[in-house]
Amino acid sequence: MKTEQKSKLRIIPLGGMEQIGMNITAFEYEDSIIVVDCGLSFPNDDMLGIDLVIPDISYLKNNIEKVKGFFITHGHEDHIGALPYVLREANVPVYGTKLTIGIIENKLKEFPSLKGVKKKVVKYGQSINMGCFRVEFIRVNHSISDAAALAIFTPVGTVIHTGDFKIDYTPIFGDPMDLARFAELGKKGVLAMMCESTNATREGFTMSERTVGRTFDNLFAEYKNHRILVATFASNVDRVQQIINTSYKYGRKVVVEGRSMVNIIGTAQELGYINIPDGTLIDIEHLKNYPDEKTVLITTGSQGESMAALSRMAAGTHRKVSIKPGDAIILSSNPIPGNEKAVAKIINELSQRGANVIYQDTHVSGHACQEEIKLLYSLVHPRYSIPIHGEYHHRLAHYRLVSQLGIPKENIFMMASGDVLEMDGEQHAQINGHVHTGSILVDGLGVGDVGNIVLRDRQSLSQNGIIIVVLSLESGSGQLLAGPDIVSRGFVYVRESEDLMDEAHELVADAVTDCLDRHITDWNRLKTVIRDTLSDFLWKKMKRNPMILPIIMEI
Amino acid sequence: MKTEQKSKLRIIPLGGMEQIGMNITAFEYEDSIIVVDCGLSFPNDDMLGIDLVIPDISYLKNNIEKVKGFFITHGHEDHIGALPYVLREANVPVYGTKLTIGIIENKLKEFPSLKGVKKKVVKYGQSINMGCFRVEFIRVNHSISDAAALAIFTPVGTVIHTGDFKIDYTPIFGDPMDLARFAELGKKGVLAMMCESTNATREGFTMSERTVGRTFDNLFAEYKNHRILVATFASNVDRVQQIINTSYKYGRKVVVEGRSMVNIIGTAQELGYINIPDGTLIDIEHLKNYPDEKTVLITTGSQGESMAALSRMAAGTHRKVSIKPGDAIILSSNPIPGNEKAVAKIINELSQRGANVIYQDTHVSGHACQEEIKLLYSLVHPRYSIPIHGEYHHRLAHYRLVSQLGIPKENIFMMASGDVLEMDGEQHAQINGHVHTGSILVDGLGVGDVGNIVLRDRQSLSQNGIIIVVLSLESGSGQLLAGPDIVSRGFVYVRESEDLMDEAHELVADAVTDCLDRHITDWNRLKTVIRDTLSDFLWKKMKRNPMILPIIMEI
Repeated sequence: MKTEQKSKLRIIPLGGMEQIGMNITAFEYEDSIIVVDCGLSFPNDDMLGIDLVIPDISYLKNNIEKVKGFFITHGHEDHIGALPYVLREANVPVYGTKLTIGIIENKLKEFPSLKGVKKKVVKYGQSINMGCFRVEFIRVNHSISDAAALAIFTPVGTVIHTGDFKIDYTPIFGDPMDLARFAELGKKGVLAMMCESTNATREGFTMSERTVGRTFDNLFAEYKNHRILVATFASNVDRVQQIINTSYKYGRKVVVEGRSMVNIIGTAQELGYINIPDGTLIDIEHLKNYPDEKTVLITTGSQGESMAALSRMAAGTHRKVSIKPGDAIILSSNPIPGNEKAVAKIINELSQRGANVIYQDTHVSGHACQEEIKLLYSLVHPRYSIPIHGEYHHRLAHYRLVSQLGIPKENIFMMASGDVLEMDGEQHAQINGHVHTGSILVDGLGVGDVGNIVLRDRQSLSQNGIIIVVLSLESGSGQLLAGPDIVSRGFVYVRESEDLMDEAHELVADAVTDCLDRHITDWNRLKTVIRDTLSDFLWKKMKRNPMILPIIMEI
Repeated sequence: MKTEQKSKLRIIPLGGMEQIGMNITAFEYEDSIIVVDCGLSFPNDDMLGIDLVIPDISYLKNNIEKVKGFFITHGHEDHIGALPYVLREANVPVYGTKLTIGIIENKLKEFPSLKGVKKKVVKYGQSINMGCFRVEFIRVNHSISDAAALAIFTPVGTVIHTGDFKIDYTPIFGDPMDLARFAELGKKGVLAMMCESTNATREGFTMSERTVGRTFDNLFAEYKNHRILVATFASNVDRVQQIINTSYKYGRKVVVEGRSMVNIIGTAQELGYINIPDGTLIDIEHLKNYPDEKTVLITTGSQGESMAALSRMAAGTHRKVSIKPGDAIILSSNPIPGNEKAVAKIINELSQRGANVIYQDTHVSGHACQEEIKLLYSLVHPRYSIPIHGEYHHRLAHYRLVSQLGIPKENIFMMASGDVLEMDGEQHAQINGHVHTGSILVDGLGVGDVGNIVLRDRQSLSQNGIIIVVLSLESGSGQLLAGPDIVSRGFVYVRESEDLMDEAHELVADAVTDCLDRHITDWNRLKTVIRDTLSDFLWKKMKRNPMILPIIMEI
């Protein structure tokens, strides 16, 4: 068994298959493991109070001596966000292109214990030898600069991992996706391709980033007598570049606002990924020195995030910018699923302040649509296909697309996180086994200390609040010394529900007295009686079931 | 002042302007008030634990002697849902078309105290005289049968309230919208039109309901060897009719599943709004007697509602229906804003069970797009326009549309709930005053007992949980008899955070002892010390701020 395993490549997605984000895949061969990407997820609606979600990397920890390094495709949170947590457990080198490493360095600064982590900048076309693997970075286009696909050369064949990509023939920064290299690899023979599925349900071809620039040009012409604000994703440096280009063309000064936007643009500027004409950028403090029609604000908050700059402007709580009637506000993004209501809210608020809010046709996606995916498969024609990234139904659409291209269904693997796909030299591939994976919840500084029980409690508390019943019993005699007192939070507004609470109190007091009269002093029984009495009463009376927490003190 | 008021028509939206739903408008002239619609809203994300939201009708209560009756445009919840609550305060007759009244009767059955409410069925074209008003019901098309617009004849002129509408030249049940009547009224002169704005941001014309039938035909042909499930809105009787028509054509038996679907289809069948060929409908218990390819299930849950039939099927918890590989599941609806994630979740779950989920181009809207709105204005050419229904930015799009049609901007009123629009005989109109309005939250059987304080508590509890600190003091001496004990819920999983909780306990105990040593026995000061000590500690240690609730017992 062991010798057989040694001759196989094992591809193990450690996250990302059950939800969007948390992209991380292990490639294992004999004594070597390399990991592609290390992303986080944002919490689902039912993960109350959770800040972010990171992958459980027990498998890497249990095989830590094999783990050689991380290869990062690009600098988005769903590909790098878990690094600060995972590197604590697996302190190995991190490889990426220049901007990607720049963003990672920025991120790791906040974690002093990770100062020693080795970060290596790799160029497109360059290969890194690592254990049994050789990894080549290949240029792709995406909604962040310096994105890469990876060609992973293994003893049993070449695996291509696309990362996130689109094909942009007229990109803003750098060159179009290196289709020729994909074709070359395809000609030599590719064992498997892990290709992203985010837009696999969408027909056609994603438009070039450059088309958004033309939209900006038109809008700047239309609103030439108004102040213009543009909200977009902080990490979309090319988008910011285009806004700056148009602003410069129209003789406007530009203010960049919002912490993450300032950070990323700073990094991009330092590393030469954005070109800002001298004198164009001004400090927000100097905004007042220029007429409105000569200024542009680029800001975060296009997803309606409640703490972002744009939300504060919309709510009238931003310290430096007030929305004025006539302002033209361009939301240069589409709502990410789940954010639709928040985005609608901000559009309403801004409109009510008299602003002209423009949110249609002001964005292009960074992900490949069906024709691009088909094009890539046609160049690479891998033997096996592993649809990755996106929800299950996106990956399923990818599966159907690829079957149409003639890849046999048994050669397309719809993997779950933790599934182990084994491939041998004879090009035989099958899912063989499953390793432990999972989600670890991060709440404040706590990593993993909030689990299902805590979440269930938070859920219950959020819906109906809590009623606490305290009483003091005399040790030994079991005589009631004080209470029962009832305190509630998040249940009803007590002052207006006095009768109800009085009635509840009386019922509980009677039930407790009754128990004690019958010499029931077992705390658990007493607590059960309190809980049952109160919950029956409240359900009958109000059709509600708050959490009921009896606390007994013994004196 | 008083005599002047008496000669004016006052139009007062009592809800619906700040959020979707809760449509209710008062029309007042001298001693008469009539009310159009009486809807509810569904809670926003921040209204934790709230079941539904109804309008505050203080204004009607304060003028109850004037209130003559409710006129209901159609049977959707956002137009009728608050009736059971509002009729308790204002028990006056309710007027509507046959199906609308049927649905209302069904609804009121659950409220025995409302047995005596008078409900009157009105036919299209029929007028009701009520106080100073005459109200005519005019046929419109919508996603529920028997929808009406209202022409309200007042001493100062005619006001048209469109309710919700679309123009369907080939409706499933009954006739197309009565455009001729609108034209006739327009010719005679219309003072004002309150027209809906739901689709005012969408170009073009909403497709006929009948087009969905053709889609069903195609899908039934494509999946002729599979079981078919169709999920749609319970109230869309015409949609259900079309599913039944196609099922009958393909020789399939039909099961209707989901409580609200069964209810509404029952009512529609009783009143003759749906035509089901004999022997087509079967009981869910008999489903197993037919081959899969001879059955169709029509079900609720197309919005991913967690308690609806489809969600239970997707989760594998439905008692009578299991999803099988190959099942064709048609989601015949678009996600309502805010439900996108829930709908995506159900698509993923159903796909993972091997079902073919079809959700694109399987629905048409029930609301008028821009060309329909323009058409209606061109027939009615009202002097004043009051955009209603929809979020602010929808109404704003409506405003812009109408300005393009040549209605002067000062004649278009973007009203807020509570605004009083006064119109006199000389056709002078202005917003003059504001009456109290608001939202009342319904939680279980409680109406209005959950307010901002309770919601804020629920919000806080949901994010970080609660820590309760209890201690007993001796009366008089202030000596510590027991505690402090610490109990938490929704904070951390205590078993895995013992050290932290121990440390917290020690800190609190020290702080309490310190206070008592210094003879600080004022409860408020003691509680403040406990709260501050604990919250400082937890913020520094974990960057979290749970609710901290000190409880002191005196013995």
